Amino acid sequence: MAKLRILGIAGSLRQNSYNRGALRAAQALAPADVEIEPFNLNGIPPFNEDDEKNPPECVVQFKKKIREADGILFVTAEYNYSIPGVLKNAIDWASRPYGDSAWQGKPAAVMGASVGNLGSARAQYHLRQVFVFLNIHDMKQPEAMIGNAGQKFDAQSNLTDEPTKEHMRKFLAAFSDYIRNVQHRH
Amino acid sequence: MAKLRILGIAGSLRQNSYNRGALRAAQALAPADVEIEPFNLNGIPPFNEDDEKNPPECVVQFKKKIREADGILFVTAEYNYSIPGVLKNAIDWASRPYGDSAWQGKPAAVMGASVGNLGSARAQYHLRQVFVFLNIHDMKQPEAMIGNAGQKFDAQSNLTDEPTKEHMRKFLAAFSDYIRNVQHRH
Amino acid sequence: MAKLRILGIAGSLRQNSYNRGALRAAQALAPADVEIEPFNLNGIPPFNEDDEKNPPECVVQFKKKIREADGILFVTAEYNYSIPGVLKNAIDWASRPYGDSAWQGKPAAVMGASVGNLGSARAQYHLRQVFVFLNIHDMKQPEAMIGNAGQKFDAQSNLTDEPTKEHMRKFLAAFSDYIRNVQHRH
Amino acid sequence: MAKLRILGIAGSLRQNSYNRGALRAAQALAPADVEIEPFNLNGIPPFNEDDEKNPPECVVQFKKKIREADGILFVTAEYNYSIPGVLKNAIDWASRPYGDSAWQGKPAAVMGASVGNLGSARAQYHLRQVFVFLNIHDMKQPEAMIGNAGQKFDAQSNLTDEPTKEHMRKFLAAFSDYIRNVQHRH
Repeated sequence: MAKLRILGIAGSLRQNSYNRGALRAAQALAPADVEIEPFNLNGIPPFNEDDEKNPPECVVQFKKKIREADGILFVTAEYNYSIPGVLKNAIDWASRPYGDSAWQGKPAAVMGASVGNLGSARAQYHLRQVFVFLNIHDMKQPEAMIGNAGQKFDAQSNLTDEPTKEHMRKFLAAFSDYIRNVQHRH
Repeated sequence: MAKLRILGIAGSLRQNSYNRGALRAAQALAPADVEIEPFNLNGIPPFNEDDEKNPPECVVQFKKKIREADGILFVTAEYNYSIPGVLKNAIDWASRPYGDSAWQGKPAAVMGASVGNLGSARAQYHLRQVFVFLNIHDMKQPEAMIGNAGQKFDAQSNLTDEPTKEHMRKFLAAFSDYIRNVQHRH
Repeated sequence: MAKLRILGIAGSLRQNSYNRGALRAAQALAPADVEIEPFNLNGIPPFNEDDEKNPPECVVQFKKKIREADGILFVTAEYNYSIPGVLKNAIDWASRPYGDSAWQGKPAAVMGASVGNLGSARAQYHLRQVFVFLNIHDMKQPEAMIGNAGQKFDAQSNLTDEPTKEHMRKFLAAFSDYIRNVQHRH
Repeated sequence: MAKLRILGIAGSLRQNSYNRGALRAAQALAPADVEIEPFNLNGIPPFNEDDEKNPPECVVQFKKKIREADGILFVTAEYNYSIPGVLKNAIDWASRPYGDSAWQGKPAAVMGASVGNLGSARAQYHLRQVFVFLNIHDMKQPEAMIGNAGQKFDAQSNLTDEPTKEHMRKFLAAFSDYIRNVQHRH
C-alpha cells in the first residue's frame, strides 16, 4: 500500500507557534502509511487579483504541493474568532485564477490549538464554510481542538500532553482511512 | 454638529475592484454630516506575531486612523465564501498586541459587492463574528449587499445603478444615526 | 443498478410553502435512477430530552425512514437568517438519544428557496455546521439557492422557472453520483 | 433608578437542564438594579406560517413579555452544534407576522452551558447571526460559556462553581450597563 502524502499547513507565521508545534507532533504521530510534509506560509505576499495570472514563485510551488498531495491537514490558529488572515490569504492565492484552483476535490482534515478553551473552534468552522466553495471534502469526525495550549506544549512549543497525543494518533488514523475511502471512489 | 469622521476600508487590493468602487460611491453619497476617508490596505505585510510589538509604519498609521475615526465602514469583497485574507490580515494587525487593539468599542457598518447574487453576504457574517471578539458595535439593519456587481458598476468600477445608490444613501444616513446614538451613550 | 432512495425533508410547515414546492419539483426532476420520498414534519412535537428514550411514533417513523434512505435531501426555508426551528427540532429528535442518531454517515444535499435574493443561503450554511457533529457527508458543489421565489413558483407553489428546473436537474444528477461514490467506499 | 426588567429564556425543555439551572443562578446573582423573569418555552407548538396571524395564547403572552422587557437574556443549550430547535422555534414565533416582530431593537445578552468544553459557543454564534435580522443589539463582551457543566452544577442543576458564579456576576453587571446605555440613546 503506497504511503499517503499529506500536505500540512500551519496557520501562523510565529516561529514558536503552538500550531506549528501541533503540526510537528502530527508528523511524528502519523500512522506508518502516512507522511506529512509541512508547508511554510512565510513569504507568501498579500493576494492581489491583478497579479493572479502571474503569481510569485512561492505560490506556484504551493499550488504544486497541494496538487501532488493525497490530502491536506490544516492546523489553524484562531485570530479574532476566525481564520488567521495569513492562512486565508494563502488559501485565496491557491484558489485562483478562476478555474485553476488547486483545492478542487481534495480531502482535508482540520485541527488547531489555542491558549483559550476553545482550541480554535471558531476558526475551524469558518474554514469548513470555505471548503464548500472550494469543493474540499472535509472529514467531519473526529475533530481536534487543543484548548489551553499553554499547559499542553513545552516552551519550544513541542506537544507534551499525553491524552492530546493519543487523540491526535486516532485523528490521523481516521484521516488516513477517510482519504483512502475518498480515493477509492474514483 | 461636528462632522462624523468615518474610516472606509475596502477589502480588496485589486485596482479596479468593485468594492473600491463601492467605497468611492459611499464617499459621494454620504450625508452632509459625514466624511468618509478611505484607507488603502496595499503595503500591509502578512501579520507575524513575533513582530507585533514592532509593527511596520503603515500599521502604526492604520491603528492611528482607526482610533481617530468615529466609526468604521467595511466594504468587503468575498473570497472563497469568507473574508478576503488581505482584509482579515489587516484586522489582525490592528487588533494586536493583546490589550492594544485599535478596534475596541468602535461603531461599524458592513457593506460589500460581488459578481454573484449574494453580494458578499457570507464574508459579511464572518466579519460580524470577528466583531464579537473585537467588541465592535455593528449596525444590524439595514444591510448592504450589492450582488450582480457586473451590471451595477461601469468599466472603471464606478457605481451607476440608481436603486443601489438610493439604498446606499439610506444605509449611510442610518449609520450616521447609529454612530451618534452609540456616542451619546458615553 | 438499483434505484437510490432519497428522503426529502422540506423545512417549513406552511401548506403552500415554496420549499414544499421545490421538493415536489425535485421529485419530478430527479434522474431515472433516483426516487425521492418526501417526509412531512407536521406533527413532530417540540423536543424534550426527558422524553428522548420514549419518542412519539412519528419520530420513530422519521428515524426509520432516515436509516432506510440512501441519502437525504434537505430543502430548507430560512427563518431569521438561520434554520427554521421546526426543521432543527426534527433534526434534534432524530439525533437522539446519544449513540442512537439516525443521521450517522448519511450522504446529504441541501437546497432551499426564499422570497429574498439569497435563496436561504444563511440557513444552508448553518445546516452544514450541524452536519459536522452529525457526521453527515454533504455534497459541496453544486449548491442550489432559489432566490426571488415569488417569480419562480406559481400560486400553488409549483416551480415554473425553466433555468431553475434545469439547475435542479443537474443538482440532482450530481447528488446521485455523490451518493454512489460515498456508497462505493464501503 | 428604576429596576431593569430582563426576560430570561432558557433554550431547553428538560426539567433538570443545566441551562435552566444557569438561568436560576442568573436570577440570584443579578445586580440589585436588575430583575430577571424566566419565561418557560414548554407548550409553544411548532411554528406554522399559516397560523401566524392567529397565534396560540402562549405565543401572545411571550411576545407581550418580550415587548415589556428592558432586555433579553438568552441562556442557550447547544444541540448538534447549533441553536436548539425549540429555542429557534420560539424565536420564529415571536418574530412574526412580518412587521410585528417583538424583538425589534431589544438589547440582549447570550450565555449558555454544555457538558463539553465549548459551553454552547457554536449555538451562541448562530444566535448572534439571527440577531442581525431581528435588529437585536447584542452585548459583545464579556461572553459567558460554561463548559464542563457536569462539574459546575449539582445533581439538581444548581450552579455551584464559584469562579463561574463570579464571572456571571460581572457578566450581568456589564449587561445592566449595556442596557442602560442603549436606552439612553433614545
